[in-house]
Amino acid sequence: MIEYSEQPHYLVAVDCIVFGFDGEHLKILLVKRALEPEINKWSLMGGFIGKEESPDDAANRVLKKNTGLEGVYLEQLQIYGSPDRDPIERTLSVGYFALIDIHKYKNQLNHDFEAKWFLINDRPNLIFDHNQMVADARKKLKYKAAIHPILFEMLPKKFTIPQLHTLFEEVNDTKIDTRNFSRKINSIGILEKLEEKDRLGSKKGAYYFKLDRKNYIEKAQKFMNLLPKLNG
Amino acid sequence: MIEYSEQPHYLVAVDCIVFGFDGEHLKILLVKRALEPEINKWSLMGGFIGKEESPDDAANRVLKKNTGLEGVYLEQLQIYGSPDRDPIERTLSVGYFALIDIHKYKNQLNHDFEAKWFLINDRPNLIFDHNQMVADARKKLKYKAAIHPILFEMLPKKFTIPQLHTLFEEVNDTKIDTRNFSRKINSIGILEKLEEKDRLGSKKGAYYFKLDRKNYIEKAQKFMNLLPKLNG
Repeated sequence: MIEYSEQPHYLVAVDCIVFGFDGEHLKILLVKRALEPEINKWSLMGGFIGKEESPDDAANRVLKKNTGLEGVYLEQLQIYGSPDRDPIERTLSVGYFALIDIHKYKNQLNHDFEAKWFLINDRPNLIFDHNQMVADARKKLKYKAAIHPILFEMLPKKFTIPQLHTLFEEVNDTKIDTRNFSRKINSIGILEKLEEKDRLGSKKGAYYFKLDRKNYIEKAQKFMNLLPKLNG
Repeated sequence: MIEYSEQPHYLVAVDCIVFGFDGEHLKILLVKRALEPEINKWSLMGGFIGKEESPDDAANRVLKKNTGLEGVYLEQLQIYGSPDRDPIERTLSVGYFALIDIHKYKNQLNHDFEAKWFLINDRPNLIFDHNQMVADARKKLKYKAAIHPILFEMLPKKFTIPQLHTLFEEVNDTKIDTRNFSRKINSIGILEKLEEKDRLGSKKGAYYFKLDRKNYIEKAQKFMNLLPKLNG
């Protein structure tokens, strides 16, 4: 008979991969680690799961403590549990990714917190298996973005097609033909054109759009129309 | 300064949600729990993560111990970490789902192991949060099946359209029009028709098909053709 008391016990932590978009580039928010080992090295923001906390609670606490942010898009990525991933003591870590519109929180983040934004493709080397976590989170972001409107979490409520195009390019880490993109995104019918124009980017200006969330979900279904419903 | 030694330590387990298809019904493989609390109640197969094991290692070990199966499709679902989910002591559990072609393992499973198949919609009540795990796994299965060829893990290498139709219905828990389904699945062009017929189901017989995996991935891309690549 297996007894609970004879089983090994472990530390369990969360680590947050925080992605943001500033209208031009996909970025990642990093902190300098505050404890040994690897103190002062660049790291994902993380922390141990407290006695009364669920992993989701811990991720929200860590995000708030390091950024002041509440109510942002936060999703469980996976568990990292290789026995030797932490050199001090076995620690399993639950990875979470968060998506942020950088401009929305710009002032708050710059003044009150130590966290710093890096270009996703020009970031420092990270401690432990955090580089792997970032790679996995990017892959999942790309994959989920193909079927869920999660990228719009990183855009302002009203945005231009050039902004959306840049975000798609950055998330997929590749060039996408501008004219094709514009034609396709309009043909899917998930965007609502507004009257107003953004005149900062060019003389001619670019119309603002907003996402039609309900339509997005319906259209996503169309892509795999063998299935009557596509939830989750 | 946070010290590792001052942090709380927890038990960490894995639980496996094993789905199978027998050509007619989607089923789930359950065991009777072998330890207190809730001994002899129906449960997912699970176990504590050992000192030298990753969570993936533990899930593979648990699956092998309870079913004899190796090399089956096994994927991390999510972590379940509510502080009070286990009444004896805090235990976080990593849920995994496995997909099995029941016929392939029929003899092995019946003779050597205690695990038992139940109809997915007519299963006993499970211990702890295992009912929630099954619900989450079903949702994920449905969702992933829309974009990945994972359902074919539950079918023999050669299968008929009626078998595939039934599996789609069972996974989505809804009726799907037979003629429509047949027309759509053929129009996507992911199946390769074989010469041979299955003559057990009807007098006329039904042609066997096999999956064209490469084509499946290409066609999945087509569904969201804004993106140049869809991996992961």
